[in-house]
Amino acid sequence: MAVYKKKVKDAAEGEDGSHDARRSRTRQALIEAALDLLGEDRTFSSLSLREVTKAAGVVPAAFYRHFRGMDSLGLELVDESFRALRAQMREVRGKPLPAEQLIRNSMELYIHYVREQERYFRFAIREFFSGATNTKLAIRNELRFFVSELATDLALLVVDRRATSADLQMMAQLIVNNMVMVTEQILELPAGRPEEDQLLVDLATKQMRVIFLGVGVWKQTSREKPAA
Amino acid sequence: MAVYKKKVKDAAEGEDGSHDARRSRTRQALIEAALDLLGEDRTFSSLSLREVTKAAGVVPAAFYRHFRGMDSLGLELVDESFRALRAQMREVRGKPLPAEQLIRNSMELYIHYVREQERYFRFAIREFFSGATNTKLAIRNELRFFVSELATDLALLVVDRRATSADLQMMAQLIVNNMVMVTEQILELPAGRPEEDQLLVDLATKQMRVIFLGVGVWKQTSREKPAA
Repeated sequence: MAVYKKKVKDAAEGEDGSHDARRSRTRQALIEAALDLLGEDRTFSSLSLREVTKAAGVVPAAFYRHFRGMDSLGLELVDESFRALRAQMREVRGKPLPAEQLIRNSMELYIHYVREQERYFRFAIREFFSGATNTKLAIRNELRFFVSELATDLALLVVDRRATSADLQMMAQLIVNNMVMVTEQILELPAGRPEEDQLLVDLATKQMRVIFLGVGVWKQTSREKPAA
Repeated sequence: MAVYKKKVKDAAEGEDGSHDARRSRTRQALIEAALDLLGEDRTFSSLSLREVTKAAGVVPAAFYRHFRGMDSLGLELVDESFRALRAQMREVRGKPLPAEQLIRNSMELYIHYVREQERYFRFAIREFFSGATNTKLAIRNELRFFVSELATDLALLVVDRRATSADLQMMAQLIVNNMVMVTEQILELPAGRPEEDQLLVDLATKQMRVIFLGVGVWKQTSREKPAA
């Protein structure tokens, strides 16, 4: 908490004290303060604006220069949580068939990334599974985005070229579902034990391969019974 | 809330006012009161013993005749959440290869069951993904139990008889992971729209089939690279 206060103070006094820099530092201090408060096993909806501003060392009026309210701060947190992930996913996409090694590398990157952005992921996973708030809906939309991007890629993997778009979405969702659960497992692993991280990479890689194997042979059985 | 109070009152005054009946009604009233309070988008750790007893219409001393403390009530909720599910799973187990129809029937049963026990599942899913409490650990243990039961069954499905026990666990966990996510989706569907429930049954059935297809062909690729 002291850190954010210092940041904001620096912004007000420091050499780089331009209006814009100060603005963006206050904004960041508010975000960091919220993440810190959330780190104490609390849900976003239990945070008050007053608490966040107090922890960030700014007055409530300063909050309103950056966010319309707590809802808007929540949506910003969701956006920040997923922004880099979207970029990372774009990189992996467009690669050919996900061979063992590609899946493994992606998993390693992902687990490393979750560790780096742990507070964001803790926030996102907790909000997704508790209560029905705007934050939750925003997270669901982010996940839907991943599902639909993945579905496009899976089209190349499914042997049956007549697989319906609904089928591709279904498989993509299966992958995203498992990634959400893997994320929960990463967050539960204590940091600083690389061998445990590696076991999780192995596990998640194999699970992804089981799914891709299933996707690859989807054809044989998708004809047995028309989609309901 | 009024209902629980009435129950407890009945127990004290009613014809069936034996000591044991009263005991078990108070116990049930405490459980129901906790579930009701949790229904207001709250986490279990945010509930106080005083609130629960007040909502159940009993004095705190009565609470201690049934539970050693809130932790013990939490563990009881977890146990109740999973008890019937374990029984249901035992029934499905021991059946031969999970054909399309068997998977579909199990999904229908499961979705129906989650709807019936909605408050328990809401509790379980929220607790699993928030904070690190005894309740969370108890839920994780329940899920581990499912994983290990399923792993035994999967042994019959994997073509490669030399599949390691770790591989079977990995696949079983993939199934349980997806079921957790499906549970979240059920809880998000508004009740009373059977056609939407049916769409979810279709989706989850297909996802399960993709996994089983992958499990079935695991052999071909599991030799490519030895387990790390």
